Amino acid sequence: MNPVITAFERSPDRGRGHARDMRLRWALEEVGVGYETRLLSFEAMKQPAHKRIHPFGQIPTYEEDSLSLFESGAILLHIADRHPGLLPTEPGARARAITWMFAALNTIEPPVFDLSILKIVEGDRPWYEERKKVLETRIEKLLADLSAYLGTDEWLVGSFSAADILMVTVLRRLIGTGLLETHSNLVSYTDRAEARPAWKRAFMAQLAVFEASQSAS
Amino acid sequence: MNPVITAFERSPDRGRGHARDMRLRWALEEVGVGYETRLLSFEAMKQPAHKRIHPFGQIPTYEEDSLSLFESGAILLHIADRHPGLLPTEPGARARAITWMFAALNTIEPPVFDLSILKIVEGDRPWYEERKKVLETRIEKLLADLSAYLGTDEWLVGSFSAADILMVTVLRRLIGTGLLETHSNLVSYTDRAEARPAWKRAFMAQLAVFEASQSAS
Repeated sequence: MNPVITAFERSPDRGRGHARDMRLRWALEEVGVGYETRLLSFEAMKQPAHKRIHPFGQIPTYEEDSLSLFESGAILLHIADRHPGLLPTEPGARARAITWMFAALNTIEPPVFDLSILKIVEGDRPWYEERKKVLETRIEKLLADLSAYLGTDEWLVGSFSAADILMVTVLRRLIGTGLLETHSNLVSYTDRAEARPAWKRAFMAQLAVFEASQSAS
Repeated sequence: MNPVITAFERSPDRGRGHARDMRLRWALEEVGVGYETRLLSFEAMKQPAHKRIHPFGQIPTYEEDSLSLFESGAILLHIADRHPGLLPTEPGARARAITWMFAALNTIEPPVFDLSILKIVEGDRPWYEERKKVLETRIEKLLADLSAYLGTDEWLVGSFSAADILMVTVLRRLIGTGLLETHSNLVSYTDRAEARPAWKRAFMAQLAVFEASQSAS
């Protein structure tokens, strides 16, 4: 039985691949595991049936036999535990790659996510411009450190890993803000990731969902 | 050789155990592993010597033989991999506990952390009260879901695990805000955690650092 993931029936990002199901699709494509997708409306996400799987009523989730998981980071770690290709096998390198998985989600993503929704959530508030500047300054510092760490390396920890999947999906939210573009090595890094066949297949899969929702409406 | 962790030389929380080294101390106490603590000033955290270990210039870090890690979540996972007692051994239960580790750090911590520093960072801005309300509403929803999930259970996933260490250290930041106090099961949950001998030893260890810094100044 293929695992089943959940995704937005109508993604608020209009198929740009920013919803977090993209991470699962990409990881599963990298390891060559097929999957089914169950689409959810915003209303269905908050219903008891879904909250039994995801207590906070969000996507994505991952169901496999009797196991159900949520949190994209945990799901990637689970996929990486079961299939070779997403984490180094040597324990030290593996722990380093996991460190960067958490760094992507716990250090970089929070301000990046806040910035990406700021216009929608607080765009009409009087403090919008100043709040935007606060977040941008925080992100600029993080990207400068990330850029210095990456240097001329291709990937965060040796070979391509689940850490790169998480970091690239976070950084892609910044494309066009000018923040990412200041660091040519971070631009090359996201370009390099997007050139991977697995990334392309995952991207097309989530785009197809958006396009189907458009033609249905 | 005992592992070496880093912590603030002068913790901004005045010894209340909110700095993230508390998580490492607690986990190491739970599994009965001794450790050394290297204290850092805010200035030293931003120097190249420390940024080679923590590219974003923060604490805590974890050094063990030739391995150096950062991100408290990744460090807890590493400790749990090496020592029994922090994660279930059955693969499904283990994956569920890891899911809750990520939920604590990626879903609950971001708005809780933002709220806990809001007064200091944006207390003098005209938008302070309204921003506070936005964050509180977000946190209220999350806590309602968390409380419903936990119900009358003692811990997040069966026995006590690394997920509880992360979740409790996040929830403790809310003590006194009135947000946590609405849910008696979440209050019992944090109380239950704080009654553990390992928690107490970890708390006293970080408090001793603060008290030493006070008497030195």
